[in-house]
Amino acid sequence: MMITLTYRIETPGSVEAMAAKIASDQSTGTFVAVPGETEELKARVAARVTAIRPLPNAPAPSWPETSAAVVHRADADIAFPLDAIGTDLSALMTIAIGGVYSIKGMTGVRIVDMKLPDAFGAAHPGPQFGISGSRRLTGVQDRPIIGTIVKPALGLRPHETAELVGELVASGVDFIKDDEKLMSPAYSPLKERVEAIMPLVLDHEQKTGKKVMYAFGISHADPDEMMRNHDLVLKAGGNCAVVNINSIGMGGVTFLRKRSGLVLHAHRNGWDVLTRHPGIGMDFKVWQQFWRLIGVDQFQINGIRVKYWEPDESFVESFRAASTPLFEPSDCPLPVAGSGQWGGQAPETYQRTGRTTDLLYLCGGGIVSHPGGPAAGVHAVQQAWEAAVRDIPLDIYAKDHPELAASIAKFGDGKDA
Amino acid sequence: MMITLTYRIETPGSVEAMAAKIASDQSTGTFVAVPGETEELKARVAARVTAIRPLPNAPAPSWPETSAAVVHRADADIAFPLDAIGTDLSALMTIAIGGVYSIKGMTGVRIVDMKLPDAFGAAHPGPQFGISGSRRLTGVQDRPIIGTIVKPALGLRPHETAELVGELVASGVDFIKDDEKLMSPAYSPLKERVEAIMPLVLDHEQKTGKKVMYAFGISHADPDEMMRNHDLVLKAGGNCAVVNINSIGMGGVTFLRKRSGLVLHAHRNGWDVLTRHPGIGMDFKVWQQFWRLIGVDQFQINGIRVKYWEPDESFVESFRAASTPLFEPSDCPLPVAGSGQWGGQAPETYQRTGRTTDLLYLCGGGIVSHPGGPAAGVHAVQQAWEAAVRDIPLDIYAKDHPELAASIAKFGDGKDA
Repeated sequence: MMITLTYRIETPGSVEAMAAKIASDQSTGTFVAVPGETEELKARVAARVTAIRPLPNAPAPSWPETSAAVVHRADADIAFPLDAIGTDLSALMTIAIGGVYSIKGMTGVRIVDMKLPDAFGAAHPGPQFGISGSRRLTGVQDRPIIGTIVKPALGLRPHETAELVGELVASGVDFIKDDEKLMSPAYSPLKERVEAIMPLVLDHEQKTGKKVMYAFGISHADPDEMMRNHDLVLKAGGNCAVVNINSIGMGGVTFLRKRSGLVLHAHRNGWDVLTRHPGIGMDFKVWQQFWRLIGVDQFQINGIRVKYWEPDESFVESFRAASTPLFEPSDCPLPVAGSGQWGGQAPETYQRTGRTTDLLYLCGGGIVSHPGGPAAGVHAVQQAWEAAVRDIPLDIYAKDHPELAASIAKFGDGKDA
Repeated sequence: MMITLTYRIETPGSVEAMAAKIASDQSTGTFVAVPGETEELKARVAARVTAIRPLPNAPAPSWPETSAAVVHRADADIAFPLDAIGTDLSALMTIAIGGVYSIKGMTGVRIVDMKLPDAFGAAHPGPQFGISGSRRLTGVQDRPIIGTIVKPALGLRPHETAELVGELVASGVDFIKDDEKLMSPAYSPLKERVEAIMPLVLDHEQKTGKKVMYAFGISHADPDEMMRNHDLVLKAGGNCAVVNINSIGMGGVTFLRKRSGLVLHAHRNGWDVLTRHPGIGMDFKVWQQFWRLIGVDQFQINGIRVKYWEPDESFVESFRAASTPLFEPSDCPLPVAGSGQWGGQAPETYQRTGRTTDLLYLCGGGIVSHPGGPAAGVHAVQQAWEAAVRDIPLDIYAKDHPELAASIAKFGDGKDA
């Protein structure tokens, strides 16, 4: 039973020597020979390089620590005995990933794959709600769950937020969220926000049978405080929370997941610094495994033509990673496509992610700034997805779908929301 | 009351425009004008650019996302109203730092300074033991606390570890730690390790009055498990724990700190990926503030001539940052210098860190691989520090200090431990 990681190594020296150094440093190795480093001990815990696949030289060193003209690259697979690490995710992160970035002589290292044995599936809960739970709670089947974000992101007082939420709830949208930057500031304490918003959600449910999923920002560096936030939402009838996984860390998310009655909507704010340089850090494919094992239910992964740096291809790969079962089909979170979305990206999103509608499609400005108001914005997005699924070009479908037509006029041709 | 961060911005475009974009994106901004973004709201939460200091152009883009020939750089100070963020550290990380790395149009951004108002000092506990507590518990005054690490780092069974620890305890060393990669694997469950080691520590205390501080690896992604680990150590008479702060995250460390009876020895494993590229991520000066407010007691920050990538100057800056009070003199953790140390780096460490002996000086191989054994290794390191404090060159002092002389013969001239 082995844990296997793939390191994309970059070095002016020998990639083979560097792979061997990683294997040694992250298991038995020390800087000088010490008594007690026996063959029997090595057999018990030593990591081993199992494959090296050369890559073209790097165009430039990722970490500017060398003036060498040639920088070699290769992918190295290194296998760690499961018993040497165990299934604790902090041990896995510390031993197989964390220490690697400090090693001298590399000008870059990126973890591009991680294969975990079944013991990890057994040791961790995975999502409590995931795709099926998100569909059940929103009552949405056979199309994407359509979501929106309260705008402006920050600064509104609870009663002002509630005014907007009232309109959004009435718009027919399935999901509404606080901006990830909104937690519990002085101008909008979570308790007051929950008290202002939940009655609107519950009233609407009473009248229409449709319960809008509202994701409240409950993150807090103190897990006890975060649980109090969680309880506030749950007690008021809420069913979802935005969790800034990267800010609170694995400890905070694990603590919450074990006690949670809410759908955990993971926002990866801050993640970009770990992945934006192609020669450094790690692929989303690797990083997401930690959070999926801990058990987030929904995972924000950007989208097509977002307003951020991330290229479409990276989003497509993230979608594929998040939609690939780790150990069983039920352990996939609901992928969340967001940022600058308005429906115009529906066809490409659908085509490039395996023609699935298992996603939460999140439009902020794309819904709230629709010229006909939020309800028209929601219709427009639904129409865009109908067209996408039926392979009808949006401009054709728009001919007898005026909300979509108005969306295209406002957001189309590079004017994305 | 403002929170001020300094962003080192790199862009082929205008640094002024990029600074304004950061201020807007991280507070009120959205991608399209939305109703409700009033002047009154902006006054409440808007972040403002308060200064821009131009820097020489970047030699190359840090993130290779442009083919532009010229990449501008500047340090921009941006002030956030305290009330817009509050004192929760996950809100601070999410709003003022996390989102910044995703912004398009920059080819690099590094947070190089963060100034927090007094409210943060009042809201967070800071270290429980810190420098004075570490000195009191080890009984070491007027010289560095000398520590060592059990080697080999991984693979020893508890009874094998205990054999080595017996020797180390007898050596006169003040502090011993598990390697940060050792937590509770199948071959060395923490419970058995504690049961094998603590009697040796307590016996030695009984006989000599000197209680060696042993730092057990208690990290776990699950805060409940970590607390059980903490309790095991405390109940057995232990007084210190190695905590992999970056792996367990702010939630895990906050949870532990609130309940801890142990000295928390922070290892920053994984941190390098956030700082190694000079144009990306953040300075230690910024990052350490989070962990110091949460309340770690000892902070590993590498040392002079380490075996890792980190240059000496970076260590010196980290030392200065960790030794500078955030809000009161008692809120400094004990800086821990380690990696490849053997005493040979004592003079330079002393000279470059303000001639202080307030540190834990950690020698692994430098003590355990001393030709005369660990006790001679400890004497050699103590002698090196005596020489350093008295400004006597090591080779002179070694003339009548044979343990130091043997150390120099083994580890000197670039053969550092």
